[in-house]
Amino acid sequence: MSKIGVHSFVWSAGSSRDDLERALNRTHELGYKLIEFSYLDPRQVDVAWLAGRIRELGLDVAISMGLPPEGDISSDDAAVVARGEEILDKAVALTRDLGGTKLAGILSSAHGKQERALTRQAWDTSVSALSKVADRARTTGVTLNLEIVNRFESNMLNTAAQGMAYIADTGASNVFLHLDTFHMNIEEADVGLAIRHAADKIGYVHIGESHRGYLGTGSIDFPAIFDALVAIGWNDYVTFESFSSAIVDKDLSLKTAIWRDLWKDNVALARHAREFITLGLQTAQLKADLVKQAHLPS
Amino acid sequence: MSKIGVHSFVWSAGSSRDDLERALNRTHELGYKLIEFSYLDPRQVDVAWLAGRIRELGLDVAISMGLPPEGDISSDDAAVVARGEEILDKAVALTRDLGGTKLAGILSSAHGKQERALTRQAWDTSVSALSKVADRARTTGVTLNLEIVNRFESNMLNTAAQGMAYIADTGASNVFLHLDTFHMNIEEADVGLAIRHAADKIGYVHIGESHRGYLGTGSIDFPAIFDALVAIGWNDYVTFESFSSAIVDKDLSLKTAIWRDLWKDNVALARHAREFITLGLQTAQLKADLVKQAHLPS
Amino acid sequence: MSKIGVHSFVWSAGSSRDDLERALNRTHELGYKLIEFSYLDPRQVDVAWLAGRIRELGLDVAISMGLPPEGDISSDDAAVVARGEEILDKAVALTRDLGGTKLAGILSSAHGKQERALTRQAWDTSVSALSKVADRARTTGVTLNLEIVNRFESNMLNTAAQGMAYIADTGASNVFLHLDTFHMNIEEADVGLAIRHAADKIGYVHIGESHRGYLGTGSIDFPAIFDALVAIGWNDYVTFESFSSAIVDKDLSLKTAIWRDLWKDNVALARHAREFITLGLQTAQLKADLVKQAHLPS
Amino acid sequence: MSKIGVHSFVWSAGSSRDDLERALNRTHELGYKLIEFSYLDPRQVDVAWLAGRIRELGLDVAISMGLPPEGDISSDDAAVVARGEEILDKAVALTRDLGGTKLAGILSSAHGKQERALTRQAWDTSVSALSKVADRARTTGVTLNLEIVNRFESNMLNTAAQGMAYIADTGASNVFLHLDTFHMNIEEADVGLAIRHAADKIGYVHIGESHRGYLGTGSIDFPAIFDALVAIGWNDYVTFESFSSAIVDKDLSLKTAIWRDLWKDNVALARHAREFITLGLQTAQLKADLVKQAHLPS
Repeated sequence: MSKIGVHSFVWSAGSSRDDLERALNRTHELGYKLIEFSYLDPRQVDVAWLAGRIRELGLDVAISMGLPPEGDISSDDAAVVARGEEILDKAVALTRDLGGTKLAGILSSAHGKQERALTRQAWDTSVSALSKVADRARTTGVTLNLEIVNRFESNMLNTAAQGMAYIADTGASNVFLHLDTFHMNIEEADVGLAIRHAADKIGYVHIGESHRGYLGTGSIDFPAIFDALVAIGWNDYVTFESFSSAIVDKDLSLKTAIWRDLWKDNVALARHAREFITLGLQTAQLKADLVKQAHLPS
Repeated sequence: MSKIGVHSFVWSAGSSRDDLERALNRTHELGYKLIEFSYLDPRQVDVAWLAGRIRELGLDVAISMGLPPEGDISSDDAAVVARGEEILDKAVALTRDLGGTKLAGILSSAHGKQERALTRQAWDTSVSALSKVADRARTTGVTLNLEIVNRFESNMLNTAAQGMAYIADTGASNVFLHLDTFHMNIEEADVGLAIRHAADKIGYVHIGESHRGYLGTGSIDFPAIFDALVAIGWNDYVTFESFSSAIVDKDLSLKTAIWRDLWKDNVALARHAREFITLGLQTAQLKADLVKQAHLPS
Repeated sequence: MSKIGVHSFVWSAGSSRDDLERALNRTHELGYKLIEFSYLDPRQVDVAWLAGRIRELGLDVAISMGLPPEGDISSDDAAVVARGEEILDKAVALTRDLGGTKLAGILSSAHGKQERALTRQAWDTSVSALSKVADRARTTGVTLNLEIVNRFESNMLNTAAQGMAYIADTGASNVFLHLDTFHMNIEEADVGLAIRHAADKIGYVHIGESHRGYLGTGSIDFPAIFDALVAIGWNDYVTFESFSSAIVDKDLSLKTAIWRDLWKDNVALARHAREFITLGLQTAQLKADLVKQAHLPS
Repeated sequence: MSKIGVHSFVWSAGSSRDDLERALNRTHELGYKLIEFSYLDPRQVDVAWLAGRIRELGLDVAISMGLPPEGDISSDDAAVVARGEEILDKAVALTRDLGGTKLAGILSSAHGKQERALTRQAWDTSVSALSKVADRARTTGVTLNLEIVNRFESNMLNTAAQGMAYIADTGASNVFLHLDTFHMNIEEADVGLAIRHAADKIGYVHIGESHRGYLGTGSIDFPAIFDALVAIGWNDYVTFESFSSAIVDKDLSLKTAIWRDLWKDNVALARHAREFITLGLQTAQLKADLVKQAHLPS
């Protein structure tokens, strides 16, 4: 059975000790088992303290990020690629130092709307750089999970099939897919079929609604997604992600085009999400069991 | 917002004081607001005591039944029709005596597999008899709610549209539809469209899965049904119904062809059902609100 | 890619030479590749002529049937079982003589509403009898395809999982499942999951709507079913079945409780069905291809 | 019943006489009744000739466009607003001169990814400018249809509810909504509910898949959308739109982030789309009729 996490931006976009403390406590109180942070700068956050608090609360942690344009590892400019590798290495280190094992997000190119189609050269440059990062990450126990995002946020990995080809090209065994239902709803032929097809390479899963608000209030067919997760035997994390203009990380909000105030009360939102995912997964498991049960006469 | 009830056969098919007491307590403990009983014979059940217990627990109550062949009010035999009217009158009285306002079930013909198609005469005979029962019921405050059932359980009212025509023919203002998602899944063109079309005449709703087991583990699209209930502003009862060979009412189990042991633990089942319906209705309401919200700049 | 057949009762319930000729011609004209007949009595139908016409039109043929109570191979009465075996042997012979390879339908018990739950003894008796029939059928090249039907039409094989257990018990290699979407919509936890689970043992497929009328006008999620058929690589027949009170086979109409006039124009119905299935399967194939396509930069 | 159109970019992004002639012929040959052109510059296209060819083929025509940043009528810069009004006036004139009655697309703000949230002032400026354009358009018989697009293509009108508020603010009777299923899949709580809610103000409809490729091969629930269109009695145009990197309009492809080659053969695509929409609408109509049909005994 999957375990359930939550992205810290449900709680706050800030990274003060108070912000982090509140995010951790809310996560724990509402029964989530993992908190995902967007990359935190160790010069501004006391990593050892944070790692300790995470441990004390019995939580798991994941780090996500999108490469900035100045660190785009698919760039024609070698200095930009080198800067990107450095950013990724630091994120791997942060993940490890916080006690986590998953680095996720847009790791293969810059996060944001692109102004040209992907070239073969950009692909190759990215694969080569990420392979090196993966190689260096091996000893940390941290996996790299490539987020598959919609066309408006990257021109590189928009489908699970593209991500699988990319992973194959790296030849690395510690690179996986980070799937996200919000993005899949836009790009995949079928979310359930894509999950089944990519089963062996899935490393991390985001559960988000089509408009990024309350689960079940958009166009995503979550029962079919829960069925697919059960079908592939997924027993790792699914992490709830939701953005509202009520909580703004200036950079991420612009890149993800958050204009609407889809919720104000994040506790109500997160409580609803946990119930929705828990009940959905439980029901999918009951369904999967039932379909195989012969009910013979005794 | 709808209120949630449960059919007593989830708890027990028996009608001893112990059986009834346990059914009432379970209903109350698990947060259901109404208990539905299949017709109880006042010669065998202490109605005043039962009414008192229902009142003490703050529950509402509904009575359901299917007419027996010997009381089929669509029969060619006037004596059978008369017997049927008498049965219905008694059921109205029982409902009233228990403090209820809804008599539901298969009230317009016998419950069971028929061996011939419906005739115009049977229809007219039934309409005429039920009109009289409705007339006599008027002073009791009890409404008659005609269950729309699948083809294998009656040859008369298989769709909401048929039920609406029947109600129109009675000319009565205290006759309504009793819709049931299990049956609608077989007979209606679309459950959501049928609910919208019949909105004005719906008096009672059963929520049951396609195979009569755990909600969400069958083929019914419940989110679409909750959307429709919210769209028509339904704020009366939806009652969970589920049958398993684990609990047998001999007559009803045969008429409804319950061969499989779809659950054993009725407390787990009922807890799941209440969460499923509560969360489903709440989510549908959020969705309905969202679709109308303009999110204008401030 | 699946091939598409049609049940002859779309055209006529009669078995006169004119009825059969018209059914064959309509089938052929509308682009169906197989015609399914309910068992035809060789004493009343010129089998050699019919086989010739089928061949001349380039059609395939399948035979379906439901055992009568007097030939129920799960009966306690050995004479009834023997009569059932004889009926099945004859149906195998008819199938072979018409040039077909599939006998389908309710072959393991009587067709109709049962008045008691299945016993272990009835199961064993049925398995034993069917094993013998299967053994004798081996040389004919005709497979036995056990129709999985809803609870109101048999108390024995209501789910694919039950059918798989039954087939395992026979130990026969020429016994398969005959799945039917109308029945699956009532009994299966999920039609798509059941098709995937039973993939190796599916021998024949009926495509029917939840109310047995026009495809797409009921509650069945056909895109999900077409996805599942493509996922398992099904490339054998799917046969359209629809019943309306416009065309009556007295016995079958009563057993299947056909009370409503869901269509009058069978040519319009069959044309719509073929387009619906063809377009649905084609679209599912495009979707399955798309989900695996990496769309790499060139 | 809806009528079916096609966007000319399915055929070509060019506007040479040959390109236009081929687009018109393909549209006509494949049975579409309307062709939609992106704004054509009358200095480069012989409008009178084109209008004649459209008329000769018995087609209807619509014009769509997205305002450029330099003509954004929500701008703080009055000169930019004035330029935008001028662009809209010209587009109205072109629509009229081609014999059309619908101008559609992103008319209330610039088309493209925005770098800030919408302000109240931008909204008011836009409403005021568009009201004037609408006023001047009145005598032409051309309606303005505001396309509701996803967050990455505009920060102003992302939902039908926002569009309705905008229309109300203009007070104009010739301004309507241009809904598009591709965008709705991302932004609306429910496409069917949004269509029902906005029924009175819908002026134009685009049918596009979630990834902009073949209909039915993405995540959109088209049967539910066809049900909603039938439910509101829509009998105007639905226009098929699909983009692939196989046909590139440089500006539009970048704004809509078309990176993948979702089809190469546009004739096969357009034939499939017309069948898909025609069969889908026909089936939805049959379903809507069926749900109201009483099937009384005769």
